[in-house]
Amino acid sequence: MASIFTKIINGEIPAYKIAENENYIAFLDAFPVVKGHVLVVPKKEVDKIFELDRETYNGLMEFAYDIAQGVEKAIPCLRVGMAVVGLEVPHVHVHLIPLNTMGDINFSRPKLELSSEEMTEIAEKIKSYL
Amino acid sequence: MASIFTKIINGEIPAYKIAENENYIAFLDAFPVVKGHVLVVPKKEVDKIFELDRETYNGLMEFAYDIAQGVEKAIPCLRVGMAVVGLEVPHVHVHLIPLNTMGDINFSRPKLELSSEEMTEIAEKIKSYL
Repeated sequence: MASIFTKIINGEIPAYKIAENENYIAFLDAFPVVKGHVLVVPKKEVDKIFELDRETYNGLMEFAYDIAQGVEKAIPCLRVGMAVVGLEVPHVHVHLIPLNTMGDINFSRPKLELSSEEMTEIAEKIKSYL
Repeated sequence: MASIFTKIINGEIPAYKIAENENYIAFLDAFPVVKGHVLVVPKKEVDKIFELDRETYNGLMEFAYDIAQGVEKAIPCLRVGMAVVGLEVPHVHVHLIPLNTMGDINFSRPKLELSSEEMTEIAEKIKSYL
């Protein structure tokens, strides 16, 4: 069965998209730990990041670098952090998380509930800096 | 003042080294959240990962890919996760963390206290798979 991210890639499930090219896509995490929490995903559906072939992995990381530059400019934060966990959705995804404290990378804490207006505004702001 | 990681790179502070080349080094985190917790560090002392120049960043990520393959084979885990936070030491470092639960990436939790024999054994085991 297609992963939820493949469904987003195929347009079957809506998402607040930030950027996309032939091989990668970036969109807002629907369950953000902080405002501006972005997921960067390879279109190739592979479960584990270190099982990606080297070329796809390198391309994913470079795509994340470009997106992070926009996040850092758009969202007030000390810096943008990165995390790859992947135990919940079996499709590689890199979290980009604007950080203000160490605790901001903690997936166990309650997620923010943002309105669709807020999500749209955040996505547009990040896109404006890419 | 040189960061603690630059001191490790210069051999002024000991570390359980995993691998090293001209531009990057990998060693065991002295304050591991789980067994097999590795740091991957560029020798160039830069504070924030997304302020690394593109070439150094790409090389760091590819070096981390190679180290992660060894960690995954050496340490029993569901997968190896990755995190970059960086609010504590102002010198870029990529955490590679063998994961068994989502909670294994949580820098707020108490660190493991491992003996030097255990640290040596873990480092040697990872190196044997590189």
